[in-house]
Amino acid sequence: MNPTELGRCFDFLNEVEKLKMVYRQNMVVDGSRQENSAEHSWHIALMAIVLADSADAKGIDLLRVVKMLLIHDLVEIDSGDTFLYDVEANKSKADKELATAKRVFGMLPQPMEAEFMALWMEFEARQTPESKFAAALDSIQPLTNHLASDGKGIVKHRIATSRVIESKKHIADASASLWRHGLEVIRKSEEAGLYLAD
Amino acid sequence: MNPTELGRCFDFLNEVEKLKMVYRQNMVVDGSRQENSAEHSWHIALMAIVLADSADAKGIDLLRVVKMLLIHDLVEIDSGDTFLYDVEANKSKADKELATAKRVFGMLPQPMEAEFMALWMEFEARQTPESKFAAALDSIQPLTNHLASDGKGIVKHRIATSRVIESKKHIADASASLWRHGLEVIRKSEEAGLYLAD
Repeated sequence: MNPTELGRCFDFLNEVEKLKMVYRQNMVVDGSRQENSAEHSWHIALMAIVLADSADAKGIDLLRVVKMLLIHDLVEIDSGDTFLYDVEANKSKADKELATAKRVFGMLPQPMEAEFMALWMEFEARQTPESKFAAALDSIQPLTNHLASDGKGIVKHRIATSRVIESKKHIADASASLWRHGLEVIRKSEEAGLYLAD
Repeated sequence: MNPTELGRCFDFLNEVEKLKMVYRQNMVVDGSRQENSAEHSWHIALMAIVLADSADAKGIDLLRVVKMLLIHDLVEIDSGDTFLYDVEANKSKADKELATAKRVFGMLPQPMEAEFMALWMEFEARQTPESKFAAALDSIQPLTNHLASDGKGIVKHRIATSRVIESKKHIADASASLWRHGLEVIRKSEEAGLYLAD
């Protein structure tokens, strides 16, 4: 890497500082503030390492999963995190995120710009074993966080359990055991009044 | 992984939520709050991926570097982050962190407990190409953050530039180009009044 390319990498690495100020609906477990997308990304990258064996697909490329998870939310830098259960906001999400992907990944020298764009598109499409597993972790972490934080940040949205299950059932495409665990967490959460029984 | 082992993994993954509430001396770039060790870990794991080519050692195992960076600060969960320039606090740091490593990594099933403990010890010892590179990234991120956040959180400590250089010069053991960049960032930071000229 020449000095110009290294400089571009550091410009990108300074730009991504902004992800620490993109806040999500759920809270950190002591309820002191909303969780941000940078620490959420750390959590699910660590999940990938700890839970790698639970993927149903054999021979999954763990480094590619971790890369996807570390970069998957950078597309939120310009317009923020879109709440999973906000139907209106989700209609315009794809266009906004693509524009941010082009801008932010475009700060990197080639071939890294192309690699990151391809990884993000792979993650969004959920067609490969790696992206299915990455998406499963991205979806199960809010569930465990809701329960661990007593639903602070989520109870007020009055989400029906059936909507939670509908939004999360793709976890089963990556791992039967993770989905069993996810359903158990959802059941306990409903019992604790975090989601609405229907 | 059987259901009992999976349950232990999730107990560990709930426990590590606490890293999001371990705060560091430096701030997020808009100055709204202190940076925490979880988002710091995310940032340097992403740095490892972007800057992998800048390591002087050839054939570095990038997944091992990323694993080290994702777990290296979990030892702060019980007693918090120790400020690099606090001489007194650093005297008792090693014992406290080892106790936390045993407790937190001990929540995982084997062989993962042993793997994580070995990765953390490798990181601390800085003898392998992977751990030297990981430590370099852990050390350069606060430098770029200080400059990007106009020194909020660091200026008040009145650190001399010579102490910064002394604490960071090990970056050169991993990468000549990263250390050149680090020195340039330190020079600009001194110029901006973030560190004290001596």
